[in-house]
Amino acid sequence: MDRLIIFDTTLRDGEQSPGASMTREEKLRIAKQLERLRVDVIEAGFAASSNGDFDAVRAIAGTIKDSTVCSLARANDKDISRAAAALEGAAHKRIHTFIATSPLHMEKKLRMTPDQVFEQAKLAVRFARRFTDDVEFSPEDGYRSDPDFLCRVLEAVIKEGATTINIPDTVGYAVPELYGRFLLDLRERIPNSDKAVWSVHCHNDLGMAVANSLAGVKIGGARQVECTINGLGERAGNCSLEEVVMAVKTRRDFFGLEVGIDTTQIVPASKLVSGITGFVVQPNKAVVGANAFAHASGIHQDGVLKARDTYEIMRAEDVGWSANKIVLGKLSGRNAFKQRVQELAIPIESETELNAAFAKFKELADRKAEIYDEDIQSLFSDEAVTPHNEHFRLVSLAQRSETGEKPHARIVFQIGAEEVTSESDGNGPVDASLRAIERRVKSGAELLLYSVNAITSGTESQGEVTVRLGRAGRIVNGVGADPDIIAASAKAYLSALNKLYTTAERLNPQTSLAP
Amino acid sequence: MDRLIIFDTTLRDGEQSPGASMTREEKLRIAKQLERLRVDVIEAGFAASSNGDFDAVRAIAGTIKDSTVCSLARANDKDISRAAAALEGAAHKRIHTFIATSPLHMEKKLRMTPDQVFEQAKLAVRFARRFTDDVEFSPEDGYRSDPDFLCRVLEAVIKEGATTINIPDTVGYAVPELYGRFLLDLRERIPNSDKAVWSVHCHNDLGMAVANSLAGVKIGGARQVECTINGLGERAGNCSLEEVVMAVKTRRDFFGLEVGIDTTQIVPASKLVSGITGFVVQPNKAVVGANAFAHASGIHQDGVLKARDTYEIMRAEDVGWSANKIVLGKLSGRNAFKQRVQELAIPIESETELNAAFAKFKELADRKAEIYDEDIQSLFSDEAVTPHNEHFRLVSLAQRSETGEKPHARIVFQIGAEEVTSESDGNGPVDASLRAIERRVKSGAELLLYSVNAITSGTESQGEVTVRLGRAGRIVNGVGADPDIIAASAKAYLSALNKLYTTAERLNPQTSLAP
Repeated sequence: MDRLIIFDTTLRDGEQSPGASMTREEKLRIAKQLERLRVDVIEAGFAASSNGDFDAVRAIAGTIKDSTVCSLARANDKDISRAAAALEGAAHKRIHTFIATSPLHMEKKLRMTPDQVFEQAKLAVRFARRFTDDVEFSPEDGYRSDPDFLCRVLEAVIKEGATTINIPDTVGYAVPELYGRFLLDLRERIPNSDKAVWSVHCHNDLGMAVANSLAGVKIGGARQVECTINGLGERAGNCSLEEVVMAVKTRRDFFGLEVGIDTTQIVPASKLVSGITGFVVQPNKAVVGANAFAHASGIHQDGVLKARDTYEIMRAEDVGWSANKIVLGKLSGRNAFKQRVQELAIPIESETELNAAFAKFKELADRKAEIYDEDIQSLFSDEAVTPHNEHFRLVSLAQRSETGEKPHARIVFQIGAEEVTSESDGNGPVDASLRAIERRVKSGAELLLYSVNAITSGTESQGEVTVRLGRAGRIVNGVGADPDIIAASAKAYLSALNKLYTTAERLNPQTSLAP
Repeated sequence: MDRLIIFDTTLRDGEQSPGASMTREEKLRIAKQLERLRVDVIEAGFAASSNGDFDAVRAIAGTIKDSTVCSLARANDKDISRAAAALEGAAHKRIHTFIATSPLHMEKKLRMTPDQVFEQAKLAVRFARRFTDDVEFSPEDGYRSDPDFLCRVLEAVIKEGATTINIPDTVGYAVPELYGRFLLDLRERIPNSDKAVWSVHCHNDLGMAVANSLAGVKIGGARQVECTINGLGERAGNCSLEEVVMAVKTRRDFFGLEVGIDTTQIVPASKLVSGITGFVVQPNKAVVGANAFAHASGIHQDGVLKARDTYEIMRAEDVGWSANKIVLGKLSGRNAFKQRVQELAIPIESETELNAAFAKFKELADRKAEIYDEDIQSLFSDEAVTPHNEHFRLVSLAQRSETGEKPHARIVFQIGAEEVTSESDGNGPVDASLRAIERRVKSGAELLLYSVNAITSGTESQGEVTVRLGRAGRIVNGVGADPDIIAASAKAYLSALNKLYTTAERLNPQTSLAP
């Protein structure tokens, strides 16, 4: 049976989403989950875009063994050399180079003639082949490009050794039938088209990224889909990995294709990416939304009780949903904790990390009787388990509010080795706490987003707070969990400040590029 | 030019989503917004499912003038009579009757033979025509039905006078090409198919509801799309109105169809539905997500600055996005307030409601210097502006938490005419506050969901808290906004209790039905 290659670009195109930038450690954690998910190719980043992204690609290349690790590179020697250098340690590596080919992008963005673009594309692929024989080429905004010009460019880059040809619908303008035929037409007209694997890369601006991708596969003959966890990505995002994979699996009768994905890792991957980026998954999101399966939301409908197939075409457990379970309590020991962490497939970087998480677990169990799987996951999503990152750390917090009075907070926290105390009034206790921190730190950052979700149901649940801070064009997320929502807010704020103040150049939404 | 009928079922199929049930007032408010959006048909509910839904359909039928108002009804005289009675006052009314036709549903759910189903469908349409000449028929799970049987049923119901034939993909199993051809095949085989308008109704389980709907239109010749705001609906939801409408508008070159929708009302509709149901819209949701347009998220990319068309195929203002603006402050008067409310197209039910909202506005302006459009909208989403509903009402709240101490809350609130005071400890200050309320109310409800979003950016923003309570199979949402997140939580909880305790039979997710 034909095989469909799953190319995940959560760490590259997903990260370009405003507010979704990640640290090296976060990217590494997601990469490991993608490997567990058995994606074929992980686009780990865009090495030339920043030193931070270079480091992240290199770290992923040095860690991932089963999946091919890929870096994006503009079609020039400098970018490609950086990508090659970052990928040096990879077991399987790919360089993905791109240049825009649509009249609009060539004229307005690149300010190049078609002939210049043609030459640059050829030279780039030729240069990339010096470092690896796995080279992907993308004509950015390909779907809005002139087909004659595209045929000329693509034939040339295949001749230069491009092994994958990806046709991006960069602006999400396609409809399935037209996109599928567009690919088919290219493949039929280009004499050496059979020398490359064809790939689709669709954006979801009109809500059709999945259907467009699949039309590219079914009608157009593509055998690689570029996608992201939760459909993360710029604007309305990319094709969702979970949707495209489950569509191919559920409708194998129609598509007749194999995918190598371990679907039981889909929901854990979704939760991990959502937790790290602070991008919520709406309840009515296909496959990974809280309501996607009736029984996952606790509602059993008559029809489902009578016969599951009446309303369900997939099984929740096949995509990794499991029921909330009380797993541990304050009497649970380190071994029980470690075992549960392993069952949850949470990657433990070191014994130090496990010990830090266990200490936090004991502290939490003192304050919360029932510890659920989600609570355990939150221990690891908390920045605090990687103590070397913690320049700012919460020590203690006291706050009060009363109708008719000014809310007030007094907070003790560490700045490096120093313990500082700060107080402030505010509109509300969260405002007062964050102002108390700001009064000492003076980051000047703007709070762009603040949201809280209960980790489990019930009033005893911990609150998981996400804050997004922006300063001078840089955007970072911080996450904090605590049974006390005000303390969780302070933790989240400090976690975001830690990211804002790390000395290494931070990863950043790369400007002005995206196939 | 051909016209595509937009049939919105947010209030019927959307409401079937676990946790999305709405009060009569909420449904009425959404119906008015749907009328402003100029949807052709509003499916207002399922009159026979409960007295509450009957009242809601009747209220909407009595209020909406421009859109056709529709009620769902199972294929029996009792349901249809109830639908007809609820619709009596409508300027334009439609009865939508359905019965399952797939082998699985007939056997497992209905326990009827195909011949029985055939007879019942015919009789139902015949009976419905007594009340209106606008009758829609849906073969539930139509896409998984035997085409021969479906042809027989549909020919018969068209002969009986069904004017719209809707083909539901009830379980979200379709792929665009097959679904489009399925419709085309039916329309070609059924001799009197041209006597009815054909309609599509797709679910999003595999992420393809929009593409499937549009294939039903383009390939299958359907001229009605059934959809919901934000894609609300059971499991992964229905086809999103905003996506399908913007796809038809943006790709008019391909679809060649007119839609009557006022697209500038899309974002207000999305926010209204999200606020009422507590179903968040993820940032990377097409059209209505916070990141759907780059510049709406404050990030201007190089490409967009050089030429907007390089990355944008729609304009944010065309779908109703507007920039945050400081509009009012504590010195603003009632007239300025009223004018801004009107500019925001917030429907004011009465002078009493306006006065109540204005009082809340003044109170808020005392505590928050800058009042944004979103703050004004929150005044109206708060239950408190409809005082007759308020059995439970917050009077005052004092709370404190301190590391190492038990968080504590003292709350004063009204239960009917009585003012009560209650105190409690808790895991955190939210838990303490909700426990203090529960200690007096003893509702025994389970907290199913708790989430907070800041209404605007900045630490001074109000928190908007959504709580979802469940008790004995009933699920209600409460929303509360306040600069103090703990007070907002208490308000949200009391708002949910108000819904749980209203004397009228509550609207409810209807069990065991859904085309």
